[in-house]
Amino acid sequence: MKQQDIAHVLTQEPTLHSLLVRGWVRSFRSNRFIALNDGSTIKNIQCVVDFENFEEDVLAKVTVGAAVEIKGVLVESQGQGQSVEIQVSDIEVLGEANPEDVKLTILSPKRHTLEKLREQAHLRVRTQTFSAVMRTRSKLSFAIHEYFQKNGFYYMHAPIVTGSDAEGAGEMFRVSALDPKNPPLKENGEIDYSKDFFGKETNLTVSGQLEAETYAMGLGKVYTFGPTFRAENSNTSRHLAEFWMIEPEVAFCDLAGNMDLAEDFIKYVIKYALEHCADDLEFLENRLLQEEKSKPQADRSDMPLREKLQFVLENNFKRVSYTEAIDILKRSKPNQKKKFKYIIEEWGADLQSEHERFLVEKHFKCPVILFDYPAKIKAFYMRLNDDGKTVRAMDVLFPGIGEIVGGSQREERYDVLKEKMEAMGIDEEELHWYLDLRKFGTAVHSGFGLGFERLVQFTTGMGNIRDVIPYPRTPGNASF
Amino acid sequence: MKQQDIAHVLTQEPTLHSLLVRGWVRSFRSNRFIALNDGSTIKNIQCVVDFENFEEDVLAKVTVGAAVEIKGVLVESQGQGQSVEIQVSDIEVLGEANPEDVKLTILSPKRHTLEKLREQAHLRVRTQTFSAVMRTRSKLSFAIHEYFQKNGFYYMHAPIVTGSDAEGAGEMFRVSALDPKNPPLKENGEIDYSKDFFGKETNLTVSGQLEAETYAMGLGKVYTFGPTFRAENSNTSRHLAEFWMIEPEVAFCDLAGNMDLAEDFIKYVIKYALEHCADDLEFLENRLLQEEKSKPQADRSDMPLREKLQFVLENNFKRVSYTEAIDILKRSKPNQKKKFKYIIEEWGADLQSEHERFLVEKHFKCPVILFDYPAKIKAFYMRLNDDGKTVRAMDVLFPGIGEIVGGSQREERYDVLKEKMEAMGIDEEELHWYLDLRKFGTAVHSGFGLGFERLVQFTTGMGNIRDVIPYPRTPGNASF
Repeated sequence: MKQQDIAHVLTQEPTLHSLLVRGWVRSFRSNRFIALNDGSTIKNIQCVVDFENFEEDVLAKVTVGAAVEIKGVLVESQGQGQSVEIQVSDIEVLGEANPEDVKLTILSPKRHTLEKLREQAHLRVRTQTFSAVMRTRSKLSFAIHEYFQKNGFYYMHAPIVTGSDAEGAGEMFRVSALDPKNPPLKENGEIDYSKDFFGKETNLTVSGQLEAETYAMGLGKVYTFGPTFRAENSNTSRHLAEFWMIEPEVAFCDLAGNMDLAEDFIKYVIKYALEHCADDLEFLENRLLQEEKSKPQADRSDMPLREKLQFVLENNFKRVSYTEAIDILKRSKPNQKKKFKYIIEEWGADLQSEHERFLVEKHFKCPVILFDYPAKIKAFYMRLNDDGKTVRAMDVLFPGIGEIVGGSQREERYDVLKEKMEAMGIDEEELHWYLDLRKFGTAVHSGFGLGFERLVQFTTGMGNIRDVIPYPRTPGNASF
Repeated sequence: MKQQDIAHVLTQEPTLHSLLVRGWVRSFRSNRFIALNDGSTIKNIQCVVDFENFEEDVLAKVTVGAAVEIKGVLVESQGQGQSVEIQVSDIEVLGEANPEDVKLTILSPKRHTLEKLREQAHLRVRTQTFSAVMRTRSKLSFAIHEYFQKNGFYYMHAPIVTGSDAEGAGEMFRVSALDPKNPPLKENGEIDYSKDFFGKETNLTVSGQLEAETYAMGLGKVYTFGPTFRAENSNTSRHLAEFWMIEPEVAFCDLAGNMDLAEDFIKYVIKYALEHCADDLEFLENRLLQEEKSKPQADRSDMPLREKLQFVLENNFKRVSYTEAIDILKRSKPNQKKKFKYIIEEWGADLQSEHERFLVEKHFKCPVILFDYPAKIKAFYMRLNDDGKTVRAMDVLFPGIGEIVGGSQREERYDVLKEKMEAMGIDEEELHWYLDLRKFGTAVHSGFGLGFERLVQFTTGMGNIRDVIPYPRTPGNASF
């Protein structure tokens, strides 16, 4: 008999046909009710055992965490909380789970802190919370691909190991196959990277954008979805050293089109999650409500999780220029009462997380797109406006998360770009290929980067970014 | 007016409605016919210019490689090779391409070798061959996600930076943020990796399998699709230092189920490519036929590209045990006439590429799945058969490509696995979490890895693996 997914079984009408399920025991109540889960859904199927008909030593092995195979028939449930259940005819214990050992792990049926779960990250996906988060993460991933593919974008794999460190998006990890104790040296005492695997110094990528631009200028509309890295010592709930990023890049698209794309894209994937992860999001919403009970009133969310997601779908993202934002912030209470850590004194200031959150959570109370930032605080490749002092940059800011998207229209003018690279000390030789794009049929083009884990955080309501990726990499931690 | 994709325009009926397209000039014939491409399809749209009505200095800038915006109406084509064309009303040159500069690049309209194209990898996606390959790569990627998502698998992001080097699948790249010239040392003179970013020695992953197993044992069915790395000095047309791999892992699945999955999966994605990349595959098929004209008869393919793909769909993969394969090889002509570089003397020999190709291309003439390999030549985690000398491993071998999939049923028995790890000198401490899976509800489970670039090679007919990934990383090369 073929195994059926429990997700599928739970949607069936009660029949008297035999069926077979396999999964892990979540609980075994009164020697009669096995709650079985196989990961296909957050819901367990209740398997009802007439214990009189089974060997005691078999039933003794049906303990929390054990893997079992169950045959039986699907019947209408007598109990509450489910419409069908399995009347068990056969049980086979496939893999035991010694209760004494289980007690020492997060598989034991009691509340464990998220910190504790993180320490046993290889087991945490067997908990309800993490299986819900990871199923949602998977569905969001697919929604991303589906959105772009439906809209004529091509998926592009940007390189992970890169010889260019020009983008300046952050500190990089070095990749090397040299003997670290005795690296070959040049005459001047420097390490001779020409003898390294790639014949030069190489790093882990911080962004696939520049390479994505080369592809947009041939395929028209492309997107990346791959891992990116930052060797920054940021031990916060918002930063990972290894994270996944989505970077669409579109030829013949200006900043307004870029904002439209970001908004349409985010709404699509959140809508997809609401439709395809209903059970998981319901669970996570309740989890969050429980968690927030222990918080002071002021720190609680205004809305339950799904209502917050629905709110994003139903409202336009507010588009605000940097200059307007600075005005609002200067006049704001926390600025005037010096409650901000960084007081906004004048135009040109870099916005901090506290300012972004004020704008989104207190002032506009909806997702905000800030645009036209001062050139001085943004990257070299952003399109200079005619005012000569701002660039066509945009950041999408989300409540509770802060910056979820950063993007821009790219500088398409060869001379302006070259001048800017010189002024910022960026090696023209190294980026000759990037300049070439402006030499051969250049065009207005734009793109953005979305930090995937921040999107998963927002969708699942998980407060710590380490809890939305299977095996988080952070300063001091590369376990598993 | 909103820009329309040329792929879309070409499917429309001729209307007299105005439309707007943007793209790059592929050719401009007789000062009258612009072949315009925007990357959305391999096909160009013919834009017909009544040159009498346009400024000469505008038309002078309509050169190969230039980016232009064209307004006009869609009319029935008078010429051959297309059903519709654009009668141009407006031309705007968005970005010029100086013909003198273009001449020095692969954008110039003449035949360039694939080697030359590789040197200008930032421009090669603007050629027909590479845009066709990269569109197909994108569609194959999506087909992979769609297959697994439809079948109840969850996408899992395995970590890229890993502290474990236990899998032994190949040489690894070191990842570090230490000062390479003056790394901190321990008292014994060894490098003190406890002071490195992650607090330990870290590498780039060679496979996400072990982590995927932890997720399969919670979510049931999972797959990875991410970059993996090998620091091996293999300068061949079949190896990359950075490549993308797909690794499904399924709880409660044995080797037979694993073979079924691999076959069903590969057929699905190839079928998807045939249906969704018809124009690109037609072009690539013709390209291949041209290329093969210069080869000796014996080295040419038996079938045109699409026929070969269709053949894979319509035939069962031949399942052959290692033991049978050895018998066939021992008795084979090239073995008896000592034509193989490595003569098969006895059971236990590791199969080389020449043997695999003989089996697939000469003997069976279809995709082959070899299974039940000698334990001694396979990894520690593979399920030992009852004979005590073979393991439940499988390799899928494809004509022209060789091994495209390698997989196995995993050893699910705690004691057997532990013993094997000891015997093979694998640090139990480091893989405690992997052993844990066998302690808490262990179960039969299986999975495989598919090298994505090999699949793209097979589907597109490209002979060199460097030509199916945007920016190949190989010994001595990490350009762009």
